[in-house]
Amino acid sequence: MEEVKIFRRVLSDVTPVPDRRVCPTVTPGYLRPLIPEQPPTEPEEWSQIQADVDTKIKPGLTHWQHPNFMAFYPATVTYPSILGEMYSAAFNAPAFNWLCSPACTELETIVLDWVAQALNLPKCFMSSSENRGGGVLQVSASDTIATVMVAARERRVRELALAEGLKEGTLEYEDRVMDLRPRLVAMGSNQAHSSTAKGALIAGTRYRSATAKLENNMELTGDDVRAVLEQCEKDNLTPYYITLSMGTTSTCAVDRISEVTAVLREKPSWQRIWVHIDAAYAGSALVADEFQYLAKDLAEGVDSFNFNMHKWLLVNFDASISLGRRFRALKIWFVMRSYGLNGLKAHVRKTIRVGDEFTNLVRSRSDLFELITKPAFGLTVFRIKDPRAQANGSAVNRTTAVKPNEKNDALTKEVYELINERGEIFITSTVVSGIYAIRVICANEAAEEKYLRRAFEILVETTDEVLGRSN
Amino acid sequence: MEEVKIFRRVLSDVTPVPDRRVCPTVTPGYLRPLIPEQPPTEPEEWSQIQADVDTKIKPGLTHWQHPNFMAFYPATVTYPSILGEMYSAAFNAPAFNWLCSPACTELETIVLDWVAQALNLPKCFMSSSENRGGGVLQVSASDTIATVMVAARERRVRELALAEGLKEGTLEYEDRVMDLRPRLVAMGSNQAHSSTAKGALIAGTRYRSATAKLENNMELTGDDVRAVLEQCEKDNLTPYYITLSMGTTSTCAVDRISEVTAVLREKPSWQRIWVHIDAAYAGSALVADEFQYLAKDLAEGVDSFNFNMHKWLLVNFDASISLGRRFRALKIWFVMRSYGLNGLKAHVRKTIRVGDEFTNLVRSRSDLFELITKPAFGLTVFRIKDPRAQANGSAVNRTTAVKPNEKNDALTKEVYELINERGEIFITSTVVSGIYAIRVICANEAAEEKYLRRAFEILVETTDEVLGRSN
Repeated sequence: MEEVKIFRRVLSDVTPVPDRRVCPTVTPGYLRPLIPEQPPTEPEEWSQIQADVDTKIKPGLTHWQHPNFMAFYPATVTYPSILGEMYSAAFNAPAFNWLCSPACTELETIVLDWVAQALNLPKCFMSSSENRGGGVLQVSASDTIATVMVAARERRVRELALAEGLKEGTLEYEDRVMDLRPRLVAMGSNQAHSSTAKGALIAGTRYRSATAKLENNMELTGDDVRAVLEQCEKDNLTPYYITLSMGTTSTCAVDRISEVTAVLREKPSWQRIWVHIDAAYAGSALVADEFQYLAKDLAEGVDSFNFNMHKWLLVNFDASISLGRRFRALKIWFVMRSYGLNGLKAHVRKTIRVGDEFTNLVRSRSDLFELITKPAFGLTVFRIKDPRAQANGSAVNRTTAVKPNEKNDALTKEVYELINERGEIFITSTVVSGIYAIRVICANEAAEEKYLRRAFEILVETTDEVLGRSN
Repeated sequence: MEEVKIFRRVLSDVTPVPDRRVCPTVTPGYLRPLIPEQPPTEPEEWSQIQADVDTKIKPGLTHWQHPNFMAFYPATVTYPSILGEMYSAAFNAPAFNWLCSPACTELETIVLDWVAQALNLPKCFMSSSENRGGGVLQVSASDTIATVMVAARERRVRELALAEGLKEGTLEYEDRVMDLRPRLVAMGSNQAHSSTAKGALIAGTRYRSATAKLENNMELTGDDVRAVLEQCEKDNLTPYYITLSMGTTSTCAVDRISEVTAVLREKPSWQRIWVHIDAAYAGSALVADEFQYLAKDLAEGVDSFNFNMHKWLLVNFDASISLGRRFRALKIWFVMRSYGLNGLKAHVRKTIRVGDEFTNLVRSRSDLFELITKPAFGLTVFRIKDPRAQANGSAVNRTTAVKPNEKNDALTKEVYELINERGEIFITSTVVSGIYAIRVICANEAAEEKYLRRAFEILVETTDEVLGRSN
């Protein structure tokens, strides 16, 4: 049976192949000359298409499931998740209302209550709660943030206009809302994902960034936020929204949520600020009991929360502010049932353990490396030391933070670029408070300590090579 | 092999089953009592999950691939499209930049050039054109419209602020932009999909609707648009965007694009209005040569164009304004190659023929039915006649349009509701210029004249029954 063969082929492509390069060697524009300029006039056989997948597409893939993928944050995929995609496709309902396929709408509400329970989120996040919380699937954290900001903007101007006695639907109301919106300010830390500033642009409101400081491990504090709020008051502007990060992109820092919400309680107008928690990557950690204390801060003063199961929780990538929506709930349902909560916890714990192991290796060579921020949820952020500078231990053991230094930056960048160019492992870099740093994370299903140990060998060898050259 | 059996099962669910009901018989909330309140702690076997799909999910599905599905617009799904989903899942790249998976970014640009050629869109829509046009995949037409409106809003305020000599990034520029945005007005006809008014809400701009008239077959004319533009001038408002529909939701009317763009050329400030063509459903028709004349109107004065392959062109549902994106291009690639342009044309032509056949049946019983608007792209919109009123032929044969009438509305609604309640076929209703009407369309892959003829029988029988009762 033809379909069976095809299915076997697809499955074989999910399996991690440790001896394959993580990143492809193609250069931008590689594909255009390989594909006919025009679509075929007559049908082609599947075998021809399949051959092109093998010879033209696969050489252009980055292998996110490769055990040596240690870049960005992970994007996992599993068999039940693929089965979810298949069924979603087979059942193909552009579910823009209940009748489009009742099971689609209903299962989404139900499994997102499962997810809220899995993370031990406060009751207010359940669809069955008094305040009718409950989750919705979006394409990505970026869509979620843009959506939430528009909702926050409208909630604020509506409140203000209604308080003045205006009636919705009137021209006076429209005019007043148009007067109010330009005074609104969205906020986030300078460590918040770029989607917050982008969201403010989409919402058409001003944006002010609060400065997270390295001495606070890049965690946004109550004082950082108060400084922005007070400046807004001076400028006669109205803060209406703030993103707090539970695991920033750059360093996986967790903003001091309860500290910030305490500051927001200080003034009546600050109490009306919409607080959104972006837990895109780190939110997944809450499936493990030992991290559920983080969810306690969400019980009061928080309006919304997002995290991506497709980063760390074994559901493959992809949701929307659109009218129609796919039957994505199946994927989550399949995965949660196939793994069970214990399976999910085990996965998170294993990958954190693997990350800690790597951090310890980095610490063991304090002659070569220094940590920049606290290792968090499997992510290690560090830089190469300048051997000619005085040895002073790694960042987290000192009372003062690492300082920016051009020599360190240059060394770190050189090591980083050489490693990725050679391609056995794939890592990413970042700039933290002016410091160029390397980020290493391995948290997909294939993660194992042996791969991290090999990565560390490569890192040491490359650093020795670069330092040898520079001496 | 376990996976092989699973794949067979999934495939069996795509196959249309003409003797199954189109819509499920479940009532809202049916699913919650069938699913455990909490996620499982231990893993479950796939066989258990599969059993639940069969017994709990399938009874809650609406069968969009059923030959008797004649509601809304179609949402098609095909084997190569599902294979595209599977590969997209297997290759799982949250493709937020080129390196995430070069093949993903590149194939999307290439196949969307294929699509532009398939529709014979003007050269400016190709990525290889001088003006660097080219397509992007979005989740749905609604996302596309919201995205385009935000882009149009920013283009307009930027132009205006720069023309005043302000510099981007300065506080003066920010203040000026905040002054300009509240004067902006988005436009669409009263027949435009609700996503246009929703898009204006997301963009935070005013919205004014132009009135399409039944005497013009609900097509928006140049005069209709000029009336709104002139009112905006009087109110000191700045129109910046308009949606023109190529196939409205309600009646599949095609707005008079060249007439409207001619009006926009009348004044310099009107020339700066972003013109978007929403061809969500009917755009697919352009694969057939005989409809490509429609694309000629897009060569000048048009800024953007959207259509949904998932409605009518055999690609299954689902795209986004997000940072990350799925590898959806595979689906289009597979489908276009498996069917070839001739296959796509044949599909469109066959479904239009089937629709025309149905229109002729409706016309043949002018004692029972009257058409409301011109049948278009397989869609027929009509109402039940009041037999006690004087017979006067069907709408399209007369010089004056059908008039609203309470008795007709009541009869039509009764027939419509009875048919859907009985469930052998599934159709939708609409209100056109105050007239309650029935919409019938059958344009999925399974469409065949025999199903439409049976639908017509049901329609006649039910109408006779209702008229008999009311006499």
